[in-house]
Amino acid sequence: MQLSKEQIEQFDRDGYLFFPSLFNPQEIKTLIDAVPELYSRQEAYNVREKDSNAVRTNFAAHMYSAPFARLARHPRMIKPVEQLFGEKLYMHQFKINGKMAFEGDVWQWHQDYGTWLNDDLMAEPRAMNVAIFLDDVNEFNGPLMFIPGSHKKGVIDASHDLTTTSYPLWTVSNHLISQLVNRAGGKNGGIVSPKGPAGSMLLFHSCLVHASSSNLSPFDRVSVYLSLCAVNNHIRRFKRPEYIAHRDFTPIESLPDDCLLKEYPVDLPWKNGIPKTALEVSVEPFAA
Amino acid sequence: MQLSKEQIEQFDRDGYLFFPSLFNPQEIKTLIDAVPELYSRQEAYNVREKDSNAVRTNFAAHMYSAPFARLARHPRMIKPVEQLFGEKLYMHQFKINGKMAFEGDVWQWHQDYGTWLNDDLMAEPRAMNVAIFLDDVNEFNGPLMFIPGSHKKGVIDASHDLTTTSYPLWTVSNHLISQLVNRAGGKNGGIVSPKGPAGSMLLFHSCLVHASSSNLSPFDRVSVYLSLCAVNNHIRRFKRPEYIAHRDFTPIESLPDDCLLKEYPVDLPWKNGIPKTALEVSVEPFAA
Repeated sequence: MQLSKEQIEQFDRDGYLFFPSLFNPQEIKTLIDAVPELYSRQEAYNVREKDSNAVRTNFAAHMYSAPFARLARHPRMIKPVEQLFGEKLYMHQFKINGKMAFEGDVWQWHQDYGTWLNDDLMAEPRAMNVAIFLDDVNEFNGPLMFIPGSHKKGVIDASHDLTTTSYPLWTVSNHLISQLVNRAGGKNGGIVSPKGPAGSMLLFHSCLVHASSSNLSPFDRVSVYLSLCAVNNHIRRFKRPEYIAHRDFTPIESLPDDCLLKEYPVDLPWKNGIPKTALEVSVEPFAA
Repeated sequence: MQLSKEQIEQFDRDGYLFFPSLFNPQEIKTLIDAVPELYSRQEAYNVREKDSNAVRTNFAAHMYSAPFARLARHPRMIKPVEQLFGEKLYMHQFKINGKMAFEGDVWQWHQDYGTWLNDDLMAEPRAMNVAIFLDDVNEFNGPLMFIPGSHKKGVIDASHDLTTTSYPLWTVSNHLISQLVNRAGGKNGGIVSPKGPAGSMLLFHSCLVHASSSNLSPFDRVSVYLSLCAVNNHIRRFKRPEYIAHRDFTPIESLPDDCLLKEYPVDLPWKNGIPKTALEVSVEPFAA
């Protein structure tokens, strides 16, 4: 899978690319079937909603679940990102976000790279956000909203939101959001919200400003969100636990294209639990 | 303005009718221009959002604002509802709902008639909900969501939600919402969300189950929501203040079709403030 010249230009201009139905229903089924058991675990890597026991985010499933470990090495995802960055990748973050029916709460407008820079000392915004839909995404179950072109603004000053949501987030001011949306076309394209069937994939720039509304519908909206960092751009501080910001910078080797259908062997270093060292954190940077 | 046979059948089947751009921009301007001053008043009839000073709902503007008093008598709204009910109408409730940019919070799934029955002792669901868009409504600014056909379920047992939102609401259980959405087509039409330019009008049955999501966008979404009750179906108890549930059952006489463009004289009984009697409430029913 190679991106065309038009796709590369589109990514540069808009800050995202959408691939509807990139994975087929059979491929997605192996993933979705594994989710309930992962969510049921009482572990640090399951972060729950503010007002309920519903899981908001499961972290690092690729470290202890074979289907997700295979997804983390899927060539349909790895190859285009390698192409855009021109180098090998490692997994910076891996999440299953359950924006569950009736329970899924909002994510305020934010950039992801702000956190990686401030907390993890990632030198440049050369890590790619990838969203893979495990459920159909429609206008009613809290789809991602992007402001096209907002990645061109670079790193935006942000403030730490600890009240609205259950997960600390560097959020962007309303005033700047209005400006960015106006610049992108206001009511005519200033916000976009790619929707599609389970198995669709979104690539989006780590400086692209995004948000999502609550899910009042009876439709679950579980997605995998992961971040693939260019190896030479690896983080320089372990301020956050390893299940949130990974510390293994070994380049990812892709598996064959049918890796969600055949049980290729994969390494599962955390299959017997998170090691204690993964919870140790430090504010001290380390040398490159 | 007369409804066609098809429109009457559609209303019976789906529980709502949508009229995009029923009022032109010039007509809507007279209304929207009057809103900021009304919102700025520190009065009981301005209910604010839970976490901010933004107005969530202004009540009873037709009692003290000439443009809204004229809207309340507009033939494009009054005539079709008279036609559906086969009798004259009075104004049961009149609201300007400001689902403001960045601030507008969710309304959980609910029916309106439940409140009118339980609190106001309105005998039958023969009061029509009308929404008139003062701003464009799009997928990003928290549009109304309907479950088509859910009005056929009649009055649904509900519980009083006092935590999620700033305004007490009888809300419907998640289990029943799932059933109703499935019955209406699930992901294929089980929820609908009519969107359109400022000046559009929605009529919807007082038993139609509806909700709306938060407004994270920079686009205000101010709408007039009003309820026109068949005169013979008037309420039988004044348990709520008069600015929420009106007590004047005099039939509405329509003004001419150009009443938002010419300054026809209208009565403004509360132009000098709400009378004390309007705040007096009683749990005792009165005779018909």
